[in-house]
Amino acid sequence: MTALPSRVHFNEVVARDGLQNEARFVPTADKIALVDALSDCGFARIEVTAFVSPKAIPPLADAQEVMQGIRRQTGVCYAVLVPNARGAARALDARADAINFVMSASESHNQSNLRMPRERSLAALAEVLAVTAGQAEVQVSISTAFGCPMEGAVDAQEVLRLAARIAGLGAGAVRALTLCDTTGMAHPAQVTQLVALLRARLPQLALTLHFHDTRGMALANMLAGLQAGVTRFDAALGGLGGCPYAPGASGNACTEDAVHMFAAMGLDTGVDLARLLPVSRRLPELVGHAIHSQVARAGPLHTRHPAPAHLA
Amino acid sequence: MTALPSRVHFNEVVARDGLQNEARFVPTADKIALVDALSDCGFARIEVTAFVSPKAIPPLADAQEVMQGIRRQTGVCYAVLVPNARGAARALDARADAINFVMSASESHNQSNLRMPRERSLAALAEVLAVTAGQAEVQVSISTAFGCPMEGAVDAQEVLRLAARIAGLGAGAVRALTLCDTTGMAHPAQVTQLVALLRARLPQLALTLHFHDTRGMALANMLAGLQAGVTRFDAALGGLGGCPYAPGASGNACTEDAVHMFAAMGLDTGVDLARLLPVSRRLPELVGHAIHSQVARAGPLHTRHPAPAHLA
Repeated sequence: MTALPSRVHFNEVVARDGLQNEARFVPTADKIALVDALSDCGFARIEVTAFVSPKAIPPLADAQEVMQGIRRQTGVCYAVLVPNARGAARALDARADAINFVMSASESHNQSNLRMPRERSLAALAEVLAVTAGQAEVQVSISTAFGCPMEGAVDAQEVLRLAARIAGLGAGAVRALTLCDTTGMAHPAQVTQLVALLRARLPQLALTLHFHDTRGMALANMLAGLQAGVTRFDAALGGLGGCPYAPGASGNACTEDAVHMFAAMGLDTGVDLARLLPVSRRLPELVGHAIHSQVARAGPLHTRHPAPAHLA
Repeated sequence: MTALPSRVHFNEVVARDGLQNEARFVPTADKIALVDALSDCGFARIEVTAFVSPKAIPPLADAQEVMQGIRRQTGVCYAVLVPNARGAARALDARADAINFVMSASESHNQSNLRMPRERSLAALAEVLAVTAGQAEVQVSISTAFGCPMEGAVDAQEVLRLAARIAGLGAGAVRALTLCDTTGMAHPAQVTQLVALLRARLPQLALTLHFHDTRGMALANMLAGLQAGVTRFDAALGGLGGCPYAPGASGNACTEDAVHMFAAMGLDTGVDLARLLPVSRRLPELVGHAIHSQVARAGPLHTRHPAPAHLA
């Protein structure tokens, strides 16, 4: 494990990817307070909300109010998800620093998640790029890049083809790509392989990795990604973000557990874990259920415990 | 991630390390049925029980009956934990194939867990070796090898010194060592480093790694161990095995999640996951609480799901 990167950048997605899956509507003021608390923790980027139809994602119907209400910190990139040109225009109005555009590597998942074929998504992306015209960075997230819950395995060459199409739009306007393991199908050897392929063939794209802990492999996959040279990771506080195809299983890679692991390994994550853990510990009250963070429960590894009573 | 080992060996410890931490006494017949079910799954080794004082570990008071009752399969090594020469003699009477002797890298943990100084433990190990005299393999587990919940960091050189002492006993009778992350303090870079040190300085010792998922790093640590050349791993079905110093956190590395990850990576684990998952899914009834297995909940990564209703 030589020559690991020394600095990793976290994109905190709980406010968007986490809350959009929650049954309970989190009040706007609480969302703003959550994002403001995250802003104090040192994240490189925070995905704040989504400019989508409130019918499509009711939990994020207050996107505009949230963007207006947050207190912005210098050095933090405030991103929003948009599905189309209208969303992009709203994002610009709300002064988003970056836009996250999502489409799927597999046709079935694009159809089920976005209700359109992949070709239509690519056209929508081109429209988004035309609307933003460099006023905000557009990053593209490729869902099901490591496997599709309906189709099964997704060929790495198919991901490469799609990534190349994306990189070719708008005269190379997209310079950042997120590979998403939407339902937790990725394993470390696959991460190594797919990252190597994309870095070799499309070196102009900065890669972010987005894992789910559905089968417990999120941190192992992040380790494999780091070893392959990736320094940008999505993660959600408390591991929020349900996977509708695997009921009861964990959601996104858990931010505090990932930050804790990388920090223990001596990497600079930018994130102040001591500040972050209290934010994590308030999450269960906010969403009304337990969360999957191991570090929030057990405390960081340097936590000392008293000797048992028989030794006192 | 080149030149990974192609075969890994699992030592299933749920019947000993898992059940010894359970509040509910699992009936002897159920323990025997559990071990028999595990024997059908292809494990290289099963740690069946412990020959200790029933006062020290009441949940395993039926050690002799369990060892008598199990149906042994060719090719499976049936191991038991023993703390001293008396335990070793009982283990031989019960026809154990292997003995697991446990002591700690840190003085505080040895005192709290075994109620004796490390020097006394080393003397007890010498007595165990004298009693067994080659009739059963003696493997030594070093607890707190990656950190002590009372003392904090444990110096890798201290682990090396202790391992060298162990390797020097009984004319080199101990040929297998387990490095135990007793309370989940290990991180991947540390695993890489400690394994490299021990493999370089004591190449005669076959290494097993034993992780806890207290901070969510068990699978990432197993990956780092594999990359460092380790091919033997302890794990417990359902991740059973409490950590008394981190209430509410997970216990041992979860066997089915680890087997699933290594199998997904194309490694031969010897374990039939399809046979193992039903055994895992019966555990909650056996112990009276939920377990921490992600794969038992979500199913293996190749699980297909139907498209949503709006596409049908």
